[in-house]
Amino acid sequence: MADSEHRQPLVADSEALERIFHRPEDDHSRLVLTKYMEQILFGLHDFLREHVGITEEISLKELAARFTSSEIAAVPVKKLADVIADIIETIAPQAVNVSSPYFIGHMTSAIPFFMVHLNTIVTALNQNPVKLETSKVVSVYERQVLSKMHRLVFGFDEGFYREHVQKPESTLGSFVEDGTLANLSALWVARNRLFPPSPGKGGAERDGLAAAMQDRGIRQVKILVSELGHYSIRKAAGVLGLGSGAVVPIAVDRENRVDLQALKETLEDFKRNPRTAVLAVVGIAGTTETGSVDPLYDMAELCSAHGIHFHVDAAWGGPVLLSAQYAGLLEGIQRADSVTIDGHKQFYLPMSSGMVLFRDPRAMDAVAYHATYINRPGSVDLGIRSLVGSRCATSLVLGSALDIMGAGGYALLIDHGIDTARQFSAEIQKGARFELVTAPELNILTYRMVPQRWRATSADRTEQLNRINVRIQRLQRETGNSFVSRTTLRRHGRPDTVVLRVVIMNPRTTMEILRSILDEQEALYRDHIAPSLEG
Amino acid sequence: MADSEHRQPLVADSEALERIFHRPEDDHSRLVLTKYMEQILFGLHDFLREHVGITEEISLKELAARFTSSEIAAVPVKKLADVIADIIETIAPQAVNVSSPYFIGHMTSAIPFFMVHLNTIVTALNQNPVKLETSKVVSVYERQVLSKMHRLVFGFDEGFYREHVQKPESTLGSFVEDGTLANLSALWVARNRLFPPSPGKGGAERDGLAAAMQDRGIRQVKILVSELGHYSIRKAAGVLGLGSGAVVPIAVDRENRVDLQALKETLEDFKRNPRTAVLAVVGIAGTTETGSVDPLYDMAELCSAHGIHFHVDAAWGGPVLLSAQYAGLLEGIQRADSVTIDGHKQFYLPMSSGMVLFRDPRAMDAVAYHATYINRPGSVDLGIRSLVGSRCATSLVLGSALDIMGAGGYALLIDHGIDTARQFSAEIQKGARFELVTAPELNILTYRMVPQRWRATSADRTEQLNRINVRIQRLQRETGNSFVSRTTLRRHGRPDTVVLRVVIMNPRTTMEILRSILDEQEALYRDHIAPSLEG
Repeated sequence: MADSEHRQPLVADSEALERIFHRPEDDHSRLVLTKYMEQILFGLHDFLREHVGITEEISLKELAARFTSSEIAAVPVKKLADVIADIIETIAPQAVNVSSPYFIGHMTSAIPFFMVHLNTIVTALNQNPVKLETSKVVSVYERQVLSKMHRLVFGFDEGFYREHVQKPESTLGSFVEDGTLANLSALWVARNRLFPPSPGKGGAERDGLAAAMQDRGIRQVKILVSELGHYSIRKAAGVLGLGSGAVVPIAVDRENRVDLQALKETLEDFKRNPRTAVLAVVGIAGTTETGSVDPLYDMAELCSAHGIHFHVDAAWGGPVLLSAQYAGLLEGIQRADSVTIDGHKQFYLPMSSGMVLFRDPRAMDAVAYHATYINRPGSVDLGIRSLVGSRCATSLVLGSALDIMGAGGYALLIDHGIDTARQFSAEIQKGARFELVTAPELNILTYRMVPQRWRATSADRTEQLNRINVRIQRLQRETGNSFVSRTTLRRHGRPDTVVLRVVIMNPRTTMEILRSILDEQEALYRDHIAPSLEG
Repeated sequence: MADSEHRQPLVADSEALERIFHRPEDDHSRLVLTKYMEQILFGLHDFLREHVGITEEISLKELAARFTSSEIAAVPVKKLADVIADIIETIAPQAVNVSSPYFIGHMTSAIPFFMVHLNTIVTALNQNPVKLETSKVVSVYERQVLSKMHRLVFGFDEGFYREHVQKPESTLGSFVEDGTLANLSALWVARNRLFPPSPGKGGAERDGLAAAMQDRGIRQVKILVSELGHYSIRKAAGVLGLGSGAVVPIAVDRENRVDLQALKETLEDFKRNPRTAVLAVVGIAGTTETGSVDPLYDMAELCSAHGIHFHVDAAWGGPVLLSAQYAGLLEGIQRADSVTIDGHKQFYLPMSSGMVLFRDPRAMDAVAYHATYINRPGSVDLGIRSLVGSRCATSLVLGSALDIMGAGGYALLIDHGIDTARQFSAEIQKGARFELVTAPELNILTYRMVPQRWRATSADRTEQLNRINVRIQRLQRETGNSFVSRTTLRRHGRPDTVVLRVVIMNPRTTMEILRSILDEQEALYRDHIAPSLEG
C-alpha cells in the first residue's frame, strides 16, 4: 500500500489540511484509520514477539550515521502509512524492547496493553489541565485521583478527604513529568517554607535566596539524604539555588538503609550552628540501585523533633502500599511532609508520569503563581500551584488503571516482583560463580561474578572483579538477548563495587528466564573473558 | 457489551494478569482490541461532532460533587470496555471540546488526526530517552529532530550540523514538558554561566547562589522582559533562587512590543551598579495575550554589546519560521542564545511537548549531572544535560509530523491563522459595537465591546467597560456554544483593560464562524447585560 501511495505526489494544500483536521466520515476512510491502529497495536507487537531479544546488534556509530539530516522537508515526504511502516520496520528493531521478560535491568518494563488504549484516549481528548477552561471535568477528575493517592500514602480519614478533595484552596499534590520534577517540586515547597515571606519581605521565592538567607543570618543550607539517594536530589538543590553541594550524603548501614545514628549526629551538628539551616531530610522508599527502604518511621520521628521537612522519595516503592503483604515495608511514610511517586514505574503507566503529594493541603500555597490570563486568584485552575504549566491529562490513565486493576491487581504485580527477587537471590547464592552483593528488600537486587579461583584468596581483588563485571554487562547488552544493568556501589567505608543490577517488575519474568540469564553470563565469561585472564 | 461483561465478576488473579501483559494472539481478541480503538477514534469524534458546542452546561459545584471518592477499589471495578464507554458518555461531554472551530480562546486547538496515531506509537514502544539503554535509536533520532529545530531557528550551515548532530559532547537542545520548563531550563543555563565554577569554587550550581553571588560581590540579579512576558519567567526566577522579584517588567510600545529605549535605559542603569548583575534579557516571539513579537534583532544587538544572555520565548511564535510569508516577523531570533518552542502549540502536537534550543552546543554543559547507574560521564545518555529525567519519546511525534506535513503544510496553517486574524480585525473595526484593542501581528488579537452610547462620551468608562466585558465572556463560556478568552491587559501608562482574546489556529475556523461569535456576544449583551444597565 505504501508503494502505490508513493506514486501520487504528496502535496500540502488546503484540501489536504481539511482532510487531516476533519476526520473522515465515510466508512472506507474509517476502515483505513482503524487498520493503521491495528498495525500499531499488533504489527509492533508481532515484531517484538518474533524478536525476543532486546535490540538488534548494531554499533551506535553506525546507527548515528543514519540520522544526520538537519533539514525540514519543504513538502510532505511521507504519508501516515509510510511513517507507521518505517517505525515498525526500521525504528522498532533498533529501539529497546523494554517489554521483554529478559529486560530486567531498569525501572522500565512491559505495560498492560490497555494502557495504550488509555493513553490514546488522553491524546484524542487533548485536554490541558493547567486551567479549567481547557479541561473542566478533567481537572475535577484529577483532584479525585490525587486524593486517592494521598489517602493511599497518608491515610487520613474520610472526613479529611471529603473536605479537601474538591476544595479549590486545597492542593493534595501535583502531576509532573517524572520523579526528578516531583523531588524538585517537594524541595521547592520546603525551601519556600523555610524562608517564608514576612512583613515587608518576600521570602526566598520573591526576594531570592541570597536575600532571604541574609535576612535570617543563614550562611548555608543543608539537605540530608542517604548516600544511595537519587541524583535528582542533587540536581534539585542545584536548580533551586541551594547548590548541589548542599546535599549531604549520609552513610548507609549493612542493609543499605540510611544509618540513623550517623543521620542524627550530622543533623545535630548542623543544628548547633545557628548559621546553618537544614532544609529537609529525604528518606528513600526503594533506592534506585538496591531497592532498599530507609527507616522512615524513625526518620519522621527525628524530623518531627527538630521541625524539619521530611520528604520521602518513593518514586519506585510507593505502589508497594497497595500490597497487603508488603505495605508494612514502607511503615512511616504516612508521617512524611511530602512524597514522590512515579506512575510510569510500579503503577505500570506509559512514560511519563510523576507525582508529588503533600500531607498539608496548604503546603503548595508556598509556590502559587497567578497571571491575568489564567490562574487568576480565586480560580480553581490547577496550574496555580504547579511547577509545570501545560501538560497532558495523565490522571485519566492512572484513575482508569486503578479501576481496571484494583488494589488487588497491582498487589499481584508487586508481590510477584518481590517474591521472584527473593527466589532469584537464593539461586545466586547457591551457585559457585556469583556473589549476592545486596539482598532484595523490594524487587531489586545486585550481584557480581566472582570466578571460583578468586573465592579462596584473601587478596583484594576488587579492581579486577570490577573490570570483569563491567565487561560481562557490556557483552550481554551488546549481544542483545537479555539485559541486566550495571552500577558502581559507592558506600562509605567500603570499596567501590561494580555490580550487576536486576529489577524484577515484568510478571512474565520467571525463574527459568532468570536462570538462563545467569547461564548466558557464565558463558560470556568463559568464552570471552576467562581466556584473556589466563593469557 | 459492557452490560453482559458486567455479569461476570471482575477478578484480579495471575491468569488475568498474564492476559493483560501478554497481548492476545487469537483473532477474536485482536478484533476486540481493535474495536476499542475504533471507539476511541470515532466514538469520541462522533460525540464531539454531534455536540458542536464546547462543553455541556453544568456548574462546577455540581460536577465536583460527582468526584469525591478517595478510596482505591480493592478489586477491579471496570473492564476496559466500561472505561471507554464511561469516558465517551460521561467524561467527554463535560470536558472541553478544544477541537471545535468555535473554541478560539486559548492556545489549544484541534490536532490533525494522525497525531493520535503517532502518540499511540510512542506509547506502545514506551521508550525512555533519559538513557541509551532504554531508548537506543530513539535517542539518536531525537538528536536529529533537535538539529532540525536548531537549524530552523539558528540557521547555521550544513557543516555545523554535520559536526554536532550526533556528537555526544554537543547538545543542541532538550525536550521538556512545556514552555514553562523550557524557559526554566534556559534561565538555569544562563544563571550557571553567569556564576560559573572557578578555581576552588563550584559556582552557583554547586556552591549555591548566595555563595556564588557573594564571591563576585553581587547583591542583586535581574532579568529583563516586557511587561507582557509570560508568568513562567517569574516562576523560573523564583524556582532558580533568584526571586521572582528579579524579573523587571519593561514597558511596551503602542504595538505591544518591548520599548527598546526603556529596555536600554534600564539595562544601562543596572550596568552602572557593580553589585547588580543582569542575568538575561528575554524577548518574546508571540506574547500570550496579544501575540506581539518584540524587536528581536535590536534586542540581540543590545545583549551582544553588553555580553548578556539573550533568551527568546517563542513558545507560541516559533513555528511561524516555517512560513515563507511570515518568517520575517521573527527576524533576529537567530541571534538568540536560547529559544523556547512548544510542540503542542503551533506544531499541533498533542499535549505536552516543550523544547529549549541553545545556539552554543556546549551551553548545556553548565547543567550536566552524572550518576553511577545512568548518565555516566562520557556516555551518550540524553539525561546528562536535561532538567527532567524519565520522559516519553516526543521526538518521534514531532519528527514524523514534519515528514507528513512538510514545512509547506505547516505554513498553510500558520498563514491561515494570521490571515484570518487580520480579516477578523477588519470585521471588528467595521462594526459599531466592538473596539479592536490590540491588532494581530501573528494570529492573536484582542477587542472589547463598547456599547454605542458610550462611544461619544469623553468620560473614563474603563471600569464599566471592564465589568461588561467580564460578564460577556462568562455568559458566552457558560452557554457553551463558543469560547473566547479574557484577560486584563496591564500596560504601563494605560488603564488596566479587560479584553476579549481570540487565538486563531484551527484551520476550520472561518470568518463565518467568527461573525457568528460576535453576533452571539451582541445578543448576550442585548438580552442579559443592557437591561440591567438601563435599570
